[in-house]
Amino acid sequence: MPADLSRLSLNQATTKYWTLCDAIDGCARAGIPAIGVWRDRLAEAGVAAAARMLRDAGLHCSSLCRGGWFPAATRAERAARIDDNRRAIEEAAALGADVLVLVCGPAPDRDIRAARAMVEEGIAAILPDAIDHGVTLGIEPLHPMFAADRSVITSLGEAVALAERFDSPRVGVVIDAYHVWWDAGVYDLIQRCGRRTVAYHVSDWIVPLPDVLNGRGMMGDGVIELRSLREAVDAAGYRGFIEVEIFNEAIWNMPGDQVVSLMCERYLEHVAPIQDQYPSKKRTPAIKDASP
Amino acid sequence: MPADLSRLSLNQATTKYWTLCDAIDGCARAGIPAIGVWRDRLAEAGVAAAARMLRDAGLHCSSLCRGGWFPAATRAERAARIDDNRRAIEEAAALGADVLVLVCGPAPDRDIRAARAMVEEGIAAILPDAIDHGVTLGIEPLHPMFAADRSVITSLGEAVALAERFDSPRVGVVIDAYHVWWDAGVYDLIQRCGRRTVAYHVSDWIVPLPDVLNGRGMMGDGVIELRSLREAVDAAGYRGFIEVEIFNEAIWNMPGDQVVSLMCERYLEHVAPIQDQYPSKKRTPAIKDASP
Repeated sequence: MPADLSRLSLNQATTKYWTLCDAIDGCARAGIPAIGVWRDRLAEAGVAAAARMLRDAGLHCSSLCRGGWFPAATRAERAARIDDNRRAIEEAAALGADVLVLVCGPAPDRDIRAARAMVEEGIAAILPDAIDHGVTLGIEPLHPMFAADRSVITSLGEAVALAERFDSPRVGVVIDAYHVWWDAGVYDLIQRCGRRTVAYHVSDWIVPLPDVLNGRGMMGDGVIELRSLREAVDAAGYRGFIEVEIFNEAIWNMPGDQVVSLMCERYLEHVAPIQDQYPSKKRTPAIKDASP
Repeated sequence: MPADLSRLSLNQATTKYWTLCDAIDGCARAGIPAIGVWRDRLAEAGVAAAARMLRDAGLHCSSLCRGGWFPAATRAERAARIDDNRRAIEEAAALGADVLVLVCGPAPDRDIRAARAMVEEGIAAILPDAIDHGVTLGIEPLHPMFAADRSVITSLGEAVALAERFDSPRVGVVIDAYHVWWDAGVYDLIQRCGRRTVAYHVSDWIVPLPDVLNGRGMMGDGVIELRSLREAVDAAGYRGFIEVEIFNEAIWNMPGDQVVSLMCERYLEHVAPIQDQYPSKKRTPAIKDASP
């Protein structure tokens, strides 16, 4: 039985120096069925060309990264951000992406509560476009260490409460194990997210943390209970892809194919259901050991 | 009217290179009425000598840092940690400290839930000693970025729930603005803490964060709404000292008296009630401006 990679997706951030074309080819070589696309690499390739490349390779687009970044000091700036999110929705529709990931953005000043209101207003403004284009918006809570410079949405509880207020199948939550593993309520919150979970990302938390921004680890190199969390996400009703998204200089500097190969191995060892592991690593049932 | 520093306390971590004697003298020179003492500097000075120095200087001990660090891989190690906490309780009693700060410690493995149970068991084990010695234990939730290497208690919600389960006047919560400011529920949680808040610490969150461990900022140099948070803590019933605790290489390398002077100025400007500010900075009532 071959190792089951049917739910694995390569988020492009993991192979930062690969173009979209490189990444598509890399997935094909490794037997990975899906990819999370970043907009800078998408712009470089061109949206129509990218959609064609994905189709030709038979590769599914599990996410487009990223929309969001709603709070800004002036009304004009906020309107510009919303326009950009509308373009991102069109791109996500063109690629047939499962979800447009929203990294919601930091506050323009010290008023984090006002910034949170701007996020909610921003999502409300773009939701009709998402519905028109059949695109699902995924609110991604980031780790609280990014509260001041990347996202005022800092916990899974906050993200799911926000998604619930929209109560639309086109607004869900993106769960990234790296961002939420520390939360004492994480298992209850995953359950509460249920089918509102529209994407699931994995990496690992290395000790000590090598870098705030680019210090994520390969699965198995850190302390996150990756299998338990994935089981909880699945038990709550998630059926989508499991994307590996790793920001790490050392990994970026490895040859892309080597990263992808390691990622497949570690996914099977630390994240995937036990029956999806490599046959060589499957445990022989105990009853057999006891018989002569 | 002189500037009101009556609630200000210097946490020794802010002037890392000062001995306890240096710090006591520095507080006296600056008119600061209280100090948060660290155990390494206390051991260096000797407990009896330190208690005498504090008394002679008329300086109050607002906290002893730190007890905690409960989770460990073996029963023997956990027992050794509990013994150390018992010594810390005796030291806190000798100094007449308002609170023994508990930094609860990381998990010895990937099982953060088991480690949280060890924290609760540890506090339960030392609580009778704390009661006997008249010492208040303060559970300090640390920022989630320290979840893997310093504290499995990562949010104010988790800390107050834990304190509530003991339901003893000798178990409270230490709120440090740096650790909890990002939380969307922080104002509600401060209210819930109420009089269980047994210490309040301030510093600031600089953008971008210079360092995970030693990158805290002087009040006013970052994005935390320090006055609003202090007002909320007071409104919930807190009447204790406001300790300035800053881990920052650049600040440590400044002359201690200069740090203390800057700290007083920034405390008045960004944290203290408006009426406590320097007279020169007090706003003239608007009604006076209107009269000839």
